[in-house]
Amino acid sequence: MIAFLGLGLISGSLAGALRAAGWRGELIAWGPRAPSLERGVELGVIDRFTLDLAAAISDADVVVIGAPPEATAVLLPQVLALAEQNGQPVVTDMASIKGFIVEAAVPTYARFVPGHPIAGSEHSGVDAATPQLFEGREVILTPTDTTESAAVSVVERIWAVAGARVTHMSAADHDAALAASSHMPHMLAYALTAMLGDHELAPMRHGGGALRDMTRIAASDPVMWRDIALTNRDAILEAMDAVATEHSALRTMIANADDVALEVFFARCRHIRREHDAILNPLHRAAEGAD
Amino acid sequence: MIAFLGLGLISGSLAGALRAAGWRGELIAWGPRAPSLERGVELGVIDRFTLDLAAAISDADVVVIGAPPEATAVLLPQVLALAEQNGQPVVTDMASIKGFIVEAAVPTYARFVPGHPIAGSEHSGVDAATPQLFEGREVILTPTDTTESAAVSVVERIWAVAGARVTHMSAADHDAALAASSHMPHMLAYALTAMLGDHELAPMRHGGGALRDMTRIAASDPVMWRDIALTNRDAILEAMDAVATEHSALRTMIANADDVALEVFFARCRHIRREHDAILNPLHRAAEGAD
Repeated sequence: MIAFLGLGLISGSLAGALRAAGWRGELIAWGPRAPSLERGVELGVIDRFTLDLAAAISDADVVVIGAPPEATAVLLPQVLALAEQNGQPVVTDMASIKGFIVEAAVPTYARFVPGHPIAGSEHSGVDAATPQLFEGREVILTPTDTTESAAVSVVERIWAVAGARVTHMSAADHDAALAASSHMPHMLAYALTAMLGDHELAPMRHGGGALRDMTRIAASDPVMWRDIALTNRDAILEAMDAVATEHSALRTMIANADDVALEVFFARCRHIRREHDAILNPLHRAAEGAD
Repeated sequence: MIAFLGLGLISGSLAGALRAAGWRGELIAWGPRAPSLERGVELGVIDRFTLDLAAAISDADVVVIGAPPEATAVLLPQVLALAEQNGQPVVTDMASIKGFIVEAAVPTYARFVPGHPIAGSEHSGVDAATPQLFEGREVILTPTDTTESAAVSVVERIWAVAGARVTHMSAADHDAALAASSHMPHMLAYALTAMLGDHELAPMRHGGGALRDMTRIAASDPVMWRDIALTNRDAILEAMDAVATEHSALRTMIANADDVALEVFFARCRHIRREHDAILNPLHRAAEGAD
């Protein structure tokens, strides 16, 4: 039996993906309040729910914490203590910042496997859950030296069934890489959207596909992104400075009307982006039958 | 008969859209070289082609210049002179910068209607053409005081048949608005992609949907974007500075761990983005049946 602690977009999608893939074990959810859990039952992504945390953990083979970083860090010590005392289930989480979570994981519990699926949406809540969310997407696990390898295997198997590909990294590398690849793009989308909102010509009214894509994630959950910005602060500031440096270099090329440098710079960017097409468009890639 | 001067993604999509909508007139294309024109006939988007510019213009009721800004500015004086002498067809263009084009439109020709469809793709060439490209998208026309209103009506009708909605602006407002809504997002995608390409952890390997969308347009045609950056230089520099200011303000909020300001800022961005959902996702909106 898998117990989801918190049922939202990500955990609901994982439950739905396991169900869609024919997973046989029971899927239950715990949360502090009933409504989203009742909705999960209605939608058929979970079999039942409980409001009793100890009961959810003691019955489970695997406990999946489906909460943002701050809430995961608050919940984790309690969950690990209950897990130690109640049948020692495998525990994993899905928070998008890992150093902070690994630090919060006291008491030490060898069957806790920190994880982060690189998938999401600007929508939130179990109603936005979709079983395809992890199809071809990366899930990064950041086990430490003391993590039990059998527990890692259990978590790997769950994600593989959900259609994801699993990789391993240190928590520190994870946080630096994700600051650049995920958190930074959100900060850019926010800065762009704020600029457009302040502009006297209201240019967003004239937006096309480029603007649609470049601002989509500015509609993400403000509370979650406030927490990510603060929790992974140093790595995000470093990435923001690195982008500001590139932006400034590009500004200089344009101000100097340096046509050769601009073409070289844009062509290099096109090359970098195309090299990552298959990773960034896993479903498209599968549909094309490429490898 | 409509003559397309140059047959690529945008003009091929317009021809395809007119054909798909049952447009009865002949659709022909001119270009300096045969291959893309032959491909257009093969794909069924045009009826025939010619390599003789004067012949293309003298037979046409409407001439559509389908070329990037620099090439449009080079071609325009020759096209307008031929149009004046050969049956006075309506002439329009689709270049993404308009002040530069209006200045290049000498001799003055009252039946020239400057235009810009806000639609595109990171792909180029007639093989990437798609009849749905303009569905629900805005086409901005920038007629001047001397533009003949009957000519404007002809161009408006063509775009309406292709599924677009037509608006009017001054060329200067167009260029400032587009610098913010289109050119700036491209510069941000380039700066982000360059930063990721330089990063020691190669973070793009760990990208998800956010990074896919935030870097898609960095794969755009480098030559076209070099020309746009130089042609609309002042407005782009202004927009880059405005984004840098927002980025720097956001950096300060994060560095100061100002949780209240961050949540307010992110929530405001979500509000701005959601207000423009229907404009930015016209097909999605049509599918939902919303107004």
